Amino acid sequence: MSQLKIKQKGNGYAVASVGNLATFGGKDFLKDALSLTGMEVSFGTLAAGEAVPFNHKHKQNEELYIVLSGTGVFTLDGEDIAVESGDAVRIDPNVVRCNRNTGATPFTYICIQAKANSLEQCTATDGVIL
Amino acid sequence: MSQLKIKQKGNGYAVASVGNLATFGGKDFLKDALSLTGMEVSFGTLAAGEAVPFNHKHKQNEELYIVLSGTGVFTLDGEDIAVESGDAVRIDPNVVRCNRNTGATPFTYICIQAKANSLEQCTATDGVIL
Repeated sequence: MSQLKIKQKGNGYAVASVGNLATFGGKDFLKDALSLTGMEVSFGTLAAGEAVPFNHKHKQNEELYIVLSGTGVFTLDGEDIAVESGDAVRIDPNVVRCNRNTGATPFTYICIQAKANSLEQCTATDGVIL
Repeated sequence: MSQLKIKQKGNGYAVASVGNLATFGGKDFLKDALSLTGMEVSFGTLAAGEAVPFNHKHKQNEELYIVLSGTGVFTLDGEDIAVESGDAVRIDPNVVRCNRNTGATPFTYICIQAKANSLEQCTATDGVIL
């Protein structure tokens, strides 16, 4: 049950909401809602006992998973890695990945995709203080 | 008081932690810790009454802010936009931005930078199901 809604669009910006993250459920993708051009970002939840039902890898995109709540395991090229709130997992395109909830509460995370090696500068070298 | 720590590095992946997000404080950047190549991702908190003390814009990077908890305002080219948990704000490079906490509790958010127009494909067109 997606709660994704576009709240506001302006000249050079857009705002969407997936609802309060403390009670987030389902799976929502932001790219189309926000007209993102440099990344795709999704929110996902796995219920207790649930796993992503397939392994996958990527052609050119780096992925970063940020765990918001719950506990789970990422399996990366066959290796299990336990994660919890505040953990961030960077995965190169060609690594085979899957993840599952290993706790009794929802396992909720953000997944960010961006083209590997596309970032040329950031923060102090890309930002302009006014 | 950063709690950022590198937990694990493997062939094609890396795991870091900023600590439990329910009690996150300070400001932490992930790019160097995780060797990210397509994005910079940071976690930030503003205390009650606190604001980012400067306006800024970017040269080439799109930014996406995801609000984890608390309430705040983003000022984008002079326009105030109220945000709360689950809101996501896309901002084009040239938009002048600032943000502040407008509530009584910490205002905590993730900021993602990626090069504008760098994403060529994603999800179904970049992912390979195995």
